[in-house]
Amino acid sequence: MTQPVSDRSAVHRYAHRAFYDRATIDAILDEGTVCHVGITTDQGHPVVIPLAYGRQGDELYLHGSAASRLFRAARAQGREVCVTVTLVDGLVVARSTYNTDINYRSVVLIGEAHEVADLSEKRRCLDALVEHVIPGRSTEARPPTEKELRATMLLRLLIHEASAKVRRGWPEDNDDDYALPVWAGVVPVRTVFDEPRPDPRMDGDLGAPPSMTAYRRPGPGRA
Amino acid sequence: MTQPVSDRSAVHRYAHRAFYDRATIDAILDEGTVCHVGITTDQGHPVVIPLAYGRQGDELYLHGSAASRLFRAARAQGREVCVTVTLVDGLVVARSTYNTDINYRSVVLIGEAHEVADLSEKRRCLDALVEHVIPGRSTEARPPTEKELRATMLLRLLIHEASAKVRRGWPEDNDDDYALPVWAGVVPVRTVFDEPRPDPRMDGDLGAPPSMTAYRRPGPGRA
Repeated sequence: MTQPVSDRSAVHRYAHRAFYDRATIDAILDEGTVCHVGITTDQGHPVVIPLAYGRQGDELYLHGSAASRLFRAARAQGREVCVTVTLVDGLVVARSTYNTDINYRSVVLIGEAHEVADLSEKRRCLDALVEHVIPGRSTEARPPTEKELRATMLLRLLIHEASAKVRRGWPEDNDDDYALPVWAGVVPVRTVFDEPRPDPRMDGDLGAPPSMTAYRRPGPGRA
Repeated sequence: MTQPVSDRSAVHRYAHRAFYDRATIDAILDEGTVCHVGITTDQGHPVVIPLAYGRQGDELYLHGSAASRLFRAARAQGREVCVTVTLVDGLVVARSTYNTDINYRSVVLIGEAHEVADLSEKRRCLDALVEHVIPGRSTEARPPTEKELRATMLLRLLIHEASAKVRRGWPEDNDDDYALPVWAGVVPVRTVFDEPRPDPRMDGDLGAPPSMTAYRRPGPGRA
């Protein structure tokens, strides 16, 4: 399955680094922890906010407070948002400062955000959000009350106009520069999820649940 | 030194998590590797792109190809951009799905991006960019040629209208939920920079330079 390429979601620079297939796009979305959501304010200014998110099939979910500016603006009729997820994989140490680079995988997704109002729908989307951050957690924690569901604003976007961009591998130095006596290589960068630490306010007899004893996120070589 | 608080850069939600002092803002900017830059396109749509950046004093630098859409749009007269840097520090495993959260530190910076055209100025800013990603590298690698400098577009923003938001610590559960037999705590999240890997195309006799034998970024407990 491949995404339709519109001018604004198409990758214009370094087109050889662009991917439009859903497998690549979904793998990046599933591995990321937070996304960066861009909206245009009523005054025409861009604002970019980090948010948790979740994905299920063709849908991406964002949630926040029903009182937040971002969410009030984003749900305004026909207001489009841009959701970007970036994973940094390495520092590319080239022979020249000009070719110094970063290995990364990113997805840029543009679409209209629509509010999910139906409470049972909302419950399902919220579960997807929690499952995204902590797989298995939605069945361990206390589920949301109706009051909590009403206090949460949930936005849904279709994964329709999206592209991925991936830079990997070694420095791409100028031909002449390979003869320079300058060290070159890559510093691998990883996001590490350490051993869970128990809340000091918790009853000491409670054992760690499955989501914690085997915390695992989708990732390169693990998905 | 404290940033002036404008309505749009002020933190409206969870105001107790907001910081406007430059020490907090600069520490987050210096620790981050990539930022997310939001612009409003000519059609009024928001676009968010991950970019490398650098900081020196009150200035933030972004660089990209002189041909890129983002940079052409951003340098348009009076066009404002939003630069957001986010560091994820932990997953907050609350007793309820509602209070499930993420520990993070973020900076949101809004301002007009101005192109740096003067070549020696550009050289200085590019060095700051390389130093941001790999401290010490700008004196090890081949410096940019005039042609390379001309092919690079460099934008400068003033760190003036900025705010930081920080969430740290344990779950903040509802009072009633502390009695639930539900495990709670935090999964610490770290960005790890692994041992540098030498480019296979490099002469094997070249030893790793200081920037690689002691790669270190500013960070919590390391700054």
